[in-house]
Amino acid sequence: MAESAASQQAQPVRESFGSRLAAAMLERGPLCVGIDPHPQLLADWGLNDDVAGLERFSLTVVEAVASLAAAVKPQVALYERHGSAGMAVLERVLAASAEAGVLSIADAKRGDIGSTMAAYADAWLRDGSSLAADSVTLSPYLGFESLRPALDLAAQYGRGVFVLALTSNPEGKSVQHVGGEQSVARRIVSAAAAENQRYEGVLGSVGLVVGATIGSALTDLDIELGPVRGAILAPGLGAQGATPADLRATFADAYPQVLATSSRGILAAGPSAAALRDAAEETLAGLRS
Amino acid sequence: MAESAASQQAQPVRESFGSRLAAAMLERGPLCVGIDPHPQLLADWGLNDDVAGLERFSLTVVEAVASLAAAVKPQVALYERHGSAGMAVLERVLAASAEAGVLSIADAKRGDIGSTMAAYADAWLRDGSSLAADSVTLSPYLGFESLRPALDLAAQYGRGVFVLALTSNPEGKSVQHVGGEQSVARRIVSAAAAENQRYEGVLGSVGLVVGATIGSALTDLDIELGPVRGAILAPGLGAQGATPADLRATFADAYPQVLATSSRGILAAGPSAAALRDAAEETLAGLRS
Repeated sequence: MAESAASQQAQPVRESFGSRLAAAMLERGPLCVGIDPHPQLLADWGLNDDVAGLERFSLTVVEAVASLAAAVKPQVALYERHGSAGMAVLERVLAASAEAGVLSIADAKRGDIGSTMAAYADAWLRDGSSLAADSVTLSPYLGFESLRPALDLAAQYGRGVFVLALTSNPEGKSVQHVGGEQSVARRIVSAAAAENQRYEGVLGSVGLVVGATIGSALTDLDIELGPVRGAILAPGLGAQGATPADLRATFADAYPQVLATSSRGILAAGPSAAALRDAAEETLAGLRS
Repeated sequence: MAESAASQQAQPVRESFGSRLAAAMLERGPLCVGIDPHPQLLADWGLNDDVAGLERFSLTVVEAVASLAAAVKPQVALYERHGSAGMAVLERVLAASAEAGVLSIADAKRGDIGSTMAAYADAWLRDGSSLAADSVTLSPYLGFESLRPALDLAAQYGRGVFVLALTSNPEGKSVQHVGGEQSVARRIVSAAAAENQRYEGVLGSVGLVVGATIGSALTDLDIELGPVRGAILAPGLGAQGATPADLRATFADAYPQVLATSSRGILAAGPSAAALRDAAEETLAGLRS
């Protein structure tokens, strides 16, 4: 598999993820709809907390927002908690997203080293894998460079990654803010910027996860996101507390790179597809104005 | 689900993971056999890189070493790369391990926040989940405390966790060594020590992942593992470069807590079950002497 992969490297099988995402954001606006089939949301929709409920919920969201959102982001943990049968639902959700013409971000937060990291890359980024998504979120506790197999496989297949950088949960500071002027988060951001130099166009294919509600952390840690030239996946819009105005204030010059993620704020409007669409359109209008 | 879980908190459903692991290490010795069905190993065993090969490989290892090893550690990425069908094989491997009487460590390196972290805990640590293992590895980029839902569910169900602390891959330093006297790795180790105060006995149920080939990093970062009172899962024995003597030198006073993990060093002896057993016994003898 490694050899045939290498021989394909010269001719990408599709446009880069960064280019495809930039085009989608330009055409549709900067909204990513999180698909989070939490037990409580399933109950609110009148669905059981089982595989059938999971599938009904997820496919309803995909169908409702596929023509409006730049991307959808299924939360992998919520499929994994239903075991292999839940992961099979996720495979169908990713396939349905591709068929409906909306980019997918598998929110998996995977991370490992060497041949194990290569196996995660294989799962989420390789053509022919049943779990292949347009992009996947990664966790860099083992170092940004430990993610190399995914960075390279993404480039080869026109897929992308979003690396955890700076999150808004209070306990995140005990790792991400450590290190003074050369904080852990700042190092991750710099590494992503360097990595995106391999890409042409407005956005490279290496994005970052930066919480929408981080407040002044970017300034505090002297982090500039503009030079990253990658999309900023910013969870926290809507039910989790951030307004579009907060996003503009927090990200300032880097706002054009921000892919704002709303989950519960939109999902709570279900199960009606029309109501989900209305909620997504309203959120988009707020992001554009 | 949450309510019935809370009502069970008073009466643990089984002995704590730390107690069960300490008993297994005392009785059998400190060996964990990694189950790493890499494509190359499958080929070496004359198996296809498909779901059938994955299952045959994994169950052969479980059967061969279940009565010798203190634990087995399936590498989740190598199942996930086969999609949901691969995860179904993992479910059977975890069930077979339990049936054969060997503790399981799902090497998943999961990590997230809030209700998403709770969903990962649900997947790997809840009774009734098809992916439930005796323990799971976790990644703390979002802060040790972000792992709270898993720490608490593990305590409730007599299961355990191993939190990534200090790894031997060179790129790990750019996160784990950052912060001078209060390095990221040192903070994770301290947090695990505090968490294990909720447990009685020799070992608490919160272990750490510390690479077998970290050299002098513990001294350099002024990290003491003894006070953690948790098992130290130390990958890197055998094919990856560390000898039992290296382990004793690296971990010094904390050596009795070390659960040495050998994967390829033992797996390369397959597919003969007798040869796998011999390799595991030889490794154990080296660890004991």
